[in-house]
Amino acid sequence: MIPSQREVEEAYERVKPYVHKTPVLKPSFLNEVSGVEIYFKCENFQRMGAFKMRGAVNAILQLSEAQRKAGVVTHSSGNFAQALSLAAKNLGVKAYIVMPKNAPQVKKEAVEGYGGIITESESTPIAREQEAERIQNETAATFIHPSNDKNVILGNATSALELLKTHQNLDYLFAPVGGGGLIAGASVAVKYFGKNCKTIGGEPFEVDDAFRSLQTGKIESNKTTNTIADGLKTSLGDVNFPIIKNLVSEIIRVEETEIISAMKLIWERLKIVVEPSSAVALAALLRERQRFQNKKIGIIISGGNVDLKNLPF
Amino acid sequence: MIPSQREVEEAYERVKPYVHKTPVLKPSFLNEVSGVEIYFKCENFQRMGAFKMRGAVNAILQLSEAQRKAGVVTHSSGNFAQALSLAAKNLGVKAYIVMPKNAPQVKKEAVEGYGGIITESESTPIAREQEAERIQNETAATFIHPSNDKNVILGNATSALELLKTHQNLDYLFAPVGGGGLIAGASVAVKYFGKNCKTIGGEPFEVDDAFRSLQTGKIESNKTTNTIADGLKTSLGDVNFPIIKNLVSEIIRVEETEIISAMKLIWERLKIVVEPSSAVALAALLRERQRFQNKKIGIIISGGNVDLKNLPF
Repeated sequence: MIPSQREVEEAYERVKPYVHKTPVLKPSFLNEVSGVEIYFKCENFQRMGAFKMRGAVNAILQLSEAQRKAGVVTHSSGNFAQALSLAAKNLGVKAYIVMPKNAPQVKKEAVEGYGGIITESESTPIAREQEAERIQNETAATFIHPSNDKNVILGNATSALELLKTHQNLDYLFAPVGGGGLIAGASVAVKYFGKNCKTIGGEPFEVDDAFRSLQTGKIESNKTTNTIADGLKTSLGDVNFPIIKNLVSEIIRVEETEIISAMKLIWERLKIVVEPSSAVALAALLRERQRFQNKKIGIIISGGNVDLKNLPF
Repeated sequence: MIPSQREVEEAYERVKPYVHKTPVLKPSFLNEVSGVEIYFKCENFQRMGAFKMRGAVNAILQLSEAQRKAGVVTHSSGNFAQALSLAAKNLGVKAYIVMPKNAPQVKKEAVEGYGGIITESESTPIAREQEAERIQNETAATFIHPSNDKNVILGNATSALELLKTHQNLDYLFAPVGGGGLIAGASVAVKYFGKNCKTIGGEPFEVDDAFRSLQTGKIESNKTTNTIADGLKTSLGDVNFPIIKNLVSEIIRVEETEIISAMKLIWERLKIVVEPSSAVALAALLRERQRFQNKKIGIIISGGNVDLKNLPF
């Protein structure tokens, strides 16, 4: 159920040639403001602009020669669509991407720019799953889930692994929680490569399915998805939830205004472009900063793909 | 007239403890798009968010103990106001900043945040110069010009110096041209530390005083200042113009739309926050990219202080 240390290490060796070793930023002003020593692992500088590249590369590299020939398929309107497209392109594999008809044009163009083959579907979860299944049947392509896939989780784990290799004494690692693929991967890396390090998730109150799932012990869903953190609207899955239940210490929920403030702080002071979803982890830390005084904290900045025409400032 | 190699090296040793060694980014996608190998020297990650910190620190460090006690004064509503305030604060010196009454509140707050003592003046050049002179007389503070000061220019030169130390084979170094302090410093560093490297300036058509000054051989001024690149509205001075005339190969002018496109490209693809002025150098390169095919080009990203509520996208 929980991947082994060796599996994480092997995933790292596997993806290394295909992903950037992203930089770690330590903004001194934020330490002064918060009383906390923060290290940002900047996956917004990752290829295609998000950590998702790591999971996509690892998943494709685990396929057999025959499977690679038939291609891969996923449904996503977000970063995983772009990640799988680019990872597939780099590895000479076809990527079929099911996107809802009403997905923003800018996202469709990004997927096409990375060579993904788009099929449009109705926007319901069932419709897109059916469409992906149809493509699987017709092309024999392998379905790769954006977050509920062991190899995707192992790929995602390599971001936290890189951070912990150079910053061994982190007390906590914060990451945003959406579909659960990032936080699950991060918590696995923390288990094997952290020293007394704990994994904490940040989640918007508006889509607090993971928070509630940890309370009830079963996967909960969201009734509404009214958050600016558009990457965090999806729910946990049966592969990543057992990992999260075992390895994530807690989930801190934040208000929408806190997300926007944290995002603005990162843009204005770190001078980097990050998605709203990325700001959720910092917002969670700032909300409860009294508890973390003088601690060393890693934060995974999940990505930087944002529509500049539609900013919340 | 032209500073010596030793003066540049000494300035570097002098400012090193007080400034960040800023990162160099090499975005592969841009090479594919432009056919040019580009290295961005990211002064937006400098302390207070701009290269100006380097010049301000160097100028203050050249003062005598008695001069430091009396403080420093400048007139600026832009980055140099913040730079001198922060540099002075770090060195235990008072900084008097003359700002026009109508300067944006956000800029005044930034200066105050760094400990600068603001005096407001009417917004004409004469009014602010008179106000600075009054402060000089009353406090014995030393006036430091934002761009037309040898020590400021030498401090600014350390950015290009850092870039050339690690990237010795650049064919060209591009920088934006405003008051002339950055391009003058960069050209001095290129003279001593470049190998067959040439310095090229980027300037908006709307404020092409430097372009015209190189044509006529004397300092020209701007009739209008209708550009988004708000850091580039000032004119050259008698200290930096002789350097620029001698050491800058050419100045390429760009349209406002080209500046905005280049800025958007940097934000979207490099995932970093840069000022419009910073995008002018890339815009200049992209405009004439045919001439620079397969060349290695350094670009100084001058700063990242921008009002997120007022973006041109």
